Amino acid sequence: MSYPLIIAYDETSLDKLSELAKMLCGHVAGFKVGLPLMLEHGVKKLRELKSSCSKALWIADVKAADIAHVVSATVTTLLRVFDKVIVHAVVGYVGALEGLKDVRENLVVVVAMSHPGADETLNRLVVALLKVAERVKPWGVVAPATKPELVRLTRQLLGQEVKILSPGVGAQGARPGTALCAGADFEIVGRAIVNAVEPLKAVKKIGEEQLEAVRRCRSAN
Amino acid sequence: MSYPLIIAYDETSLDKLSELAKMLCGHVAGFKVGLPLMLEHGVKKLRELKSSCSKALWIADVKAADIAHVVSATVTTLLRVFDKVIVHAVVGYVGALEGLKDVRENLVVVVAMSHPGADETLNRLVVALLKVAERVKPWGVVAPATKPELVRLTRQLLGQEVKILSPGVGAQGARPGTALCAGADFEIVGRAIVNAVEPLKAVKKIGEEQLEAVRRCRSAN
Repeated sequence: MSYPLIIAYDETSLDKLSELAKMLCGHVAGFKVGLPLMLEHGVKKLRELKSSCSKALWIADVKAADIAHVVSATVTTLLRVFDKVIVHAVVGYVGALEGLKDVRENLVVVVAMSHPGADETLNRLVVALLKVAERVKPWGVVAPATKPELVRLTRQLLGQEVKILSPGVGAQGARPGTALCAGADFEIVGRAIVNAVEPLKAVKKIGEEQLEAVRRCRSAN
Repeated sequence: MSYPLIIAYDETSLDKLSELAKMLCGHVAGFKVGLPLMLEHGVKKLRELKSSCSKALWIADVKAADIAHVVSATVTTLLRVFDKVIVHAVVGYVGALEGLKDVRENLVVVVAMSHPGADETLNRLVVALLKVAERVKPWGVVAPATKPELVRLTRQLLGQEVKILSPGVGAQGARPGTALCAGADFEIVGRAIVNAVEPLKAVKKIGEEQLEAVRRCRSAN
């Protein structure tokens, strides 16, 4: 069975990712690919990736943060290969994300981030960024597992339909299940699985911890 | 002679950019390449680009906005080909741009943007973003020609040494020379030159307008 887990891959080896995808296929919900791999190889070379696990969601984590005509061209290029593309809400709507109306079902919008530096910058705007996301009406949003109060706020302001993806589990310190209990749909884990000696074993361990945490928080409510 | 102009190229044709670079070489200070081209081809394929005008600055406008280990891997990949890489200040320092200490001479940091949507988001943080830039100590920063007061503030807070690159001239509405008069070192022009029937003629026209504006604002002070 598949856990509510998305694998974050920020390295540049195509072979390693392809092997990883075959190994974890059916056990995780998707694979989130970072800019380093895309820049190293170009999107054409990434086409065969999806066939290594076609039932998973393939997400391009480009975190595009530019004006409308650039962000549109970026997203269009990536959707030739990926199912979803991640963009930043912090560039705003008018003259930026408004250019993506036709592909809103393929978008995931970052409304807050997990690292300390974000608290002095991006995360101070979280309410404004949630309003940007409300206008974009994307398939999903990204809110950090390290800040469950922001996941809760996101669910409260954006409603039940949008998917919430939460990074920060593992290397960045959040416990598996924390974000799910706060209202997220998926938790994103990178290095704790990608660099594990036995990635499938790491997935199962983290996945079971997720399910156990959800059982506990549901019975507490 | 070379005008204080940087060409922004956000299309995906390598041939068109290569031709453009040969044609404008010696007349402009550099070429700023957007994400669509990099994603389409991958950085290896961009290697021969520089030889189409080796005396120009080649700037990768990836606008990276991610946590430290991803932004580092992104910048490292791009510096194999480009002279400078553009990153966003809006992700903050700790856990993000602090990962780039060793390459600060190759960085250009976005502290504000030119489109209307930025005023409801990113630009509200401009003082915090200038403080992030102050910690990074990059070669250059990006501040919009459409908002000369932000260019002035940038020069005032960051001092004389940092290069200021100003987009927004041409298609986005700022007049050539406006940002230079406010303290910028270079103005960035994209579509008004890239899509011109005669790009070199467009460069000369915009370049002469720059020089004339600078003459006027210098004699007024």
